[in-house]
Order: sequence, then structure tokens, then C-alpha cells
Amino acid sequence: MKILVVNCGSSSLKFQLIDMDTDKVLAKGRCDRIGGAATEIGSPFIEYKGPVGDKIKEELPLENHRVAFETVVRYLTDPEHGAIKDLSEITAIGHRIVNAGPFFKESTLITDEVLKLFKEKSIPYAPLHNPGALQGIEACLETMKGIPEVLVFDTTFHQTMPEKAYMYALPREYYEKYGVRRYGAHGMSHQYVTEEAAKLTGIPLDQINLISCHIGNGSSITAVQNGKCVDTSMGFTPLEGLAMGTRSGDLDPAILEFVMAREHLSIEEMLNILNKKSGLLGISGKTGDVRDLKTLSREGDENAKLALEILCYRIKKYIGAYMAVLGRVDVITFEGGIAEHNPRTVRKCLTNMENLGIELDPSYDEGPNYVDGETYDGLVSTPNSKIKVYVIATNEEEVIAKEALRLAK
Amino acid sequence: MKILVVNCGSSSLKFQLIDMDTDKVLAKGRCDRIGGAATEIGSPFIEYKGPVGDKIKEELPLENHRVAFETVVRYLTDPEHGAIKDLSEITAIGHRIVNAGPFFKESTLITDEVLKLFKEKSIPYAPLHNPGALQGIEACLETMKGIPEVLVFDTTFHQTMPEKAYMYALPREYYEKYGVRRYGAHGMSHQYVTEEAAKLTGIPLDQINLISCHIGNGSSITAVQNGKCVDTSMGFTPLEGLAMGTRSGDLDPAILEFVMAREHLSIEEMLNILNKKSGLLGISGKTGDVRDLKTLSREGDENAKLALEILCYRIKKYIGAYMAVLGRVDVITFEGGIAEHNPRTVRKCLTNMENLGIELDPSYDEGPNYVDGETYDGLVSTPNSKIKVYVIATNEEEVIAKEALRLAK
Repeated sequence: MKILVVNCGSSSLKFQLIDMDTDKVLAKGRCDRIGGAATEIGSPFIEYKGPVGDKIKEELPLENHRVAFETVVRYLTDPEHGAIKDLSEITAIGHRIVNAGPFFKESTLITDEVLKLFKEKSIPYAPLHNPGALQGIEACLETMKGIPEVLVFDTTFHQTMPEKAYMYALPREYYEKYGVRRYGAHGMSHQYVTEEAAKLTGIPLDQINLISCHIGNGSSITAVQNGKCVDTSMGFTPLEGLAMGTRSGDLDPAILEFVMAREHLSIEEMLNILNKKSGLLGISGKTGDVRDLKTLSREGDENAKLALEILCYRIKKYIGAYMAVLGRVDVITFEGGIAEHNPRTVRKCLTNMENLGIELDPSYDEGPNYVDGETYDGLVSTPNSKIKVYVIATNEEEVIAKEALRLAK
Repeated sequence: MKILVVNCGSSSLKFQLIDMDTDKVLAKGRCDRIGGAATEIGSPFIEYKGPVGDKIKEELPLENHRVAFETVVRYLTDPEHGAIKDLSEITAIGHRIVNAGPFFKESTLITDEVLKLFKEKSIPYAPLHNPGALQGIEACLETMKGIPEVLVFDTTFHQTMPEKAYMYALPREYYEKYGVRRYGAHGMSHQYVTEEAAKLTGIPLDQINLISCHIGNGSSITAVQNGKCVDTSMGFTPLEGLAMGTRSGDLDPAILEFVMAREHLSIEEMLNILNKKSGLLGISGKTGDVRDLKTLSREGDENAKLALEILCYRIKKYIGAYMAVLGRVDVITFEGGIAEHNPRTVRKCLTNMENLGIELDPSYDEGPNYVDGETYDGLVSTPNSKIKVYVIATNEEEVIAKEALRLAK
């Protein structure tokens, strides 16, 4: 059985075709610059990697998501590079949704009612992500008629949070009227590494306590008790929590009023700055990309150095907070682009925590085989460390595919 | 030598006259409803407790802070109830200032230049507190001519924070142009308990690591390393951090835009709600007063119960975060009105933290002599607990008085 996993943004479409019997990715790729004409930053394109490992990039007009899906289908069924003969081989399609608000608690088959509800109610709960996802879903429904499609939510794993973790200290009516609460994000990633950590340690899933640190361009940390989420750092939207590439994360809300008055900003402009011009980019004044920050830092750039310090310092604080929440922690996981490629950054987040049960194995990033920036995957604590620390290559697509298959059956 | 400690709000004036040779409070009291006429909630009044322990309350017109100070002087020098013969006995006056922004880092003697700077630059850094403080200072200067006056700041203790703790992940220019950074508050209280904890444990002040939890109507938690502040939960203003009586503390900044659009609020109105209608009051929908919340909770009110749970849960998370920051923690202190009168609330913040080195002594709030709501002061952990936990009656006035004396000399 083959599942197509889809992740649409406003101008992008990422896809993976997975064989569920072998867990193998048969084909994957992305369309980008959808809806745009060729400009100086480049033309719309599809990037595709097929079953024989050939990687193809083609520039072509992609007027909208529908054309993009048609292109994906053309590649997937291509006699030479394709992975399937025709669409009937696809059992189901799973769409990733960041946050649909209080209206969707768990994965759901797309029906007319579901689509209507998502369209009319859910958009404001992830205003940067949902409009693109909706365009993608509608185009996919047109292009791939007859195949069951499923919405899978990044917030589902966080539904088990207790009230004391998801309620803000705000007037109750905002929760009752608008669903203002902590929803969290990266749920599929946190779920995947939780299951992996249970396998790696042999602790039964329903007994494992862990702290999952998804550190990528967007970052969030989740506290897991007995295999279930009990708290997470992202909040009502993916803006809260850690210092991210361009997102501010936690701050004093009074700063908004103070800055808006002095910079003559509307609240929309202010939020745009907090989402797109803050975080590591804001602190460094130059870039939100950890690779570039590391280079700058080595060259002596103090602001870049500070950005990296703040990245690690905030991660450390959340780990401590969730240690207190959990009482007993078996495992800490690090996953996501930054964590998987920067073992020294992971180490910096965990220095001087021996009293709390973390003993790092210095050989993992100091051995002769260590190459900075290279992917690391495995145990980074000593075998005797009370709390085991793993870097795990996360796989959100696998979670989406499983959900799509479960519901399509 | 006698020092007068003054703490002015927009309509209140609290004072203590302290004999620095004996550390004894000779007289204390407050004027309230300054500037108001008699209304149905009551008339302006002075409450005064003199050296012989007599407590007097007098209702009288208090048109402004100047009249209030004249009344205080009349009481302090009263032949029957007074503590001094005339003002010349007062060596110095110390004024408490919540936050004066980047312009004042440490206590300072008031000069014309200092007053001008405070007046012109500092007001927006504590907009709820500074206008009243300024009125008080100006009235005091007029009323008590010739006595050295000193500004003592709640932010001074926090000046030792490293950059990674005080910088927000915001565009750098907001820090450079406007001084947007973490300032913290309750510095005098955190400083006082740090010194007390060093005495109680015999650990030298410059070697003690502790977490100080000031839990009152406003609340903040501070991480102290080698006797110096390295991080604190209040931020640019006293709005950030814990869930307080009426203040929201931490939240996703994106909530402001979402709620403002739906409730048709300006940013000023939104901030007013976050400061005055949120926190425990917002969650419970009824009251921000912990005594009332406890009563309601006992009567089965679920929202009141949740408010108390969130109060403790957020405290626990900050304690965990600062444990990770400090690596080694010798002492956790609890001080401030709520902590000093609610040992069971303190206990709730620290449950299930044995793995982190906290072992509570159950007898302190379960013994036959325990009365709920009564002041508790002393060790609440077991003598063997790796981390010692103390409830300490804080004394911010003593810190202000010492600073005033030091600078007046």
C-alpha cells in the first residue's frame, strides 16, 4: 500500500510517496515558487527524487497549486522516473495541517463538511500556513479524484495537555469565545521521536517520560509523561517559546505597546516583525541561519555569538522547566534540522547539568571522525547517564502516512 | 541614625522610619486615597503605628502628596505618638523606584540633574508606578528640605544578568534605541533573602546559588549564582513571567493581535487588560486574591481551583528552568505575601521534585500547630534535603534604608 504525504505552503508543495509495507520512500520532492512567474530570484520549479535515486530539477510554469499537483502526478507516473503506473496505486493522501484551532482535535477524512469547517473557521489559527494548505487541499481534491484524503494535525499530539498547561492567565471569555489556549506544534515530530525513544531504550511507550527538543527553523520543546504530551513551548501559534530563526519566542507582552508607539507600527506590522524579523536574525542583525551564524561567530562577530548563546540558553531553560514538570525524566531527544546537523549546539544546551542527571559523552563531537555540520544520529550521553540523550532523525511524514492509512482503511 | 523609607504610588504613600543602629522600625504607616475626596469607598486616611505600638487611623483631606507628607511629618514628630523630636534627626530618605529604564543602574542621591533625568526619561519604563513615585519625590523634597534623598531601584540587583538572559530575540535596534531588555523587579526583596539565606545556611554570600521566589500580588523568581542575579522572570516591565493577581505573565504575543481584532481593542486597552484583568482574576473570573481563591476552591469552584493550580505550576516551571541555568542550587527561598501566609501553596509548587533534590518536611504544614493562612517563616525542607527550602519574611525596606544611609554618608 502506498500513501502520498503532502505539505503545502502558500507557494510550495512538498510531497513523499511512501510504501507502507516496506516503510520505504519511493519518491519525494517539492514544487516551489507556485503562482510566481520567473523573476530574478528564479523560476517556479519541481525538484524530484525517484525510486532509482535520480534527482531531477525542472523549471516550468506553475500557475497555481492545481498545476503543481498535475506536475507531481506526471512525475510520479512517468514511465522512466516514476514510482507508480497510475494513481489507483495510491491508497490515501495525507495533508499536514499546522493548527486548525479548536475545531479539529484529531486526524480526519476530508469530506465536504470537513473542508467547509476548515475553510470557514480554521484559517486564523495558523494565518501564515493555513491559506496555502487550503489551496493545496482543494487542488489535490480536483487532481486526484477518488483517493481518500486525510487531514493530519500538528496539534493532535498535544491534545493530552492538562488544563493547567494549556490555559493562559487571561480573561476566561477569550478561551470560551475564541479558543485562545496553548495548541503547540511539531506534534508529528514529537510523536515520532517519543516512539523511537521507547524503542531505543526498551521502556514501554506508556511508561516513558521524556523531553523532546525539535530544533529547526521553527523550534519547540515538549514534555512527555507516560508517552503523552503534558506541556509544550509553542502556544496559541508557533510564535511562542524558543528563539527561532526569525521568530521572537517568549517576551514581555508590554514590549509590543512600547515599540508600537515609538516605531508607529500597527499590531499587524508588529506581529509581522515578531514572526519574520526577530529571533536569531533580530539578535544577530544579519541572519537567522545557524550555519551562517556559526561562521560569523568563528570570525568574531559578537552579535552572531550572542544569537547562538540565546538559542541554547532558552533551550536549556525549557528543558529545566519540563524536568520540574515531569519529576522523572528518562530521555531527552534532539531532532529537527539544527539539532541533527549541529551536535556541538546540542552539547551547549546541556552543559553543566550533571547535578540534574545529564552526563554527556565528549567523544561524540570530539572524536577524530567528527565533522562539524555533519548529521549525527544516536546516543550523545554516556551509557551511565541517568537521563539518556539522543539525537534522532525525525520523520514527520511517516506519522502522517500512518494516520492517512489508518483512516482510509 | 534614622532613615525614612518611602514608597509612593499614584494615590498612596507608604513609609517606615528605621533606627539603623538597632535595625528597629520606630514608626510606620501609610497614607491612602491621596488626591481623592471622601467617596462611597471611603475617605483619604493615614494609618500610623508609632514606637509604643499604638495604631492610629485618621480620616482627613489629603489633596496631594505634599499634604500627605506634611501629615506624615506631623505624626512622626507628634509629642505623644511620634518617634522623633524634629526632622533633623532623619539622616536620609530612601525612595523606592520600580524601574527607571537604562538611565539608572544603581542607587543615587537625588540632585536637580537626577530628578530631571528621571522626570524626562524614566516614566515609560514603569508607567503604572513612576508617575506616582515622581509626585511623591517632588512633594518630599519640598516638605523635608535639607535631608539627603536617595533613589533606590528594584532593578539594581538584576544588573548583573548576562546578555543572554537580558536580551530579547528582537531586532537589535529596539535595545539600542529604546533600551528594550529584561530589567526585572523586586530586586530589594531578592537581595534581602539572598543575604538571609547565606546567613541561615552558613554559605558565604559570594558562593551561594539560590532561586528566590517572591510570590505576592506581583510575583517574580530570580536565579542567583555566587550571590549575584543571573536571570529573573519579570522582564521589560513587571508584566512578564508568573501568573499574578491580575497580570497575565507569559503568553504567546500573537494572542494580542488575535484578541484585539475580535474585541475591537487598541493596544493600550489590551495592555490594560493584561495588567489588570488577567492573571488569577482572569482565570477564576472572580478574584485575584489567593485567600478568596482558596475559599472558593474549597467550596468546589473549578475555575478558582484552576487559578491556584496555574499559580503553582508556573512557579514550578521557573524553578526548574533556573535549576538548569544554575547547575547547582543550594537554596530555594519563598517570600512575599502569598508565600509567607500560605505554606500549602509553597508545598504545591514543589511536589514530586525529589529527583531534583527537593525533599519537603511534611510536618511544617501538617503538624498540630499548623493554621492555614498563618505566617510561616523557616525551613520547609527536611534537614537532609540536597536543596534547602526556606520561607523567609522579606524586608525590602531594610535594603532601601541601607542604601540611603550608604549614599548619605
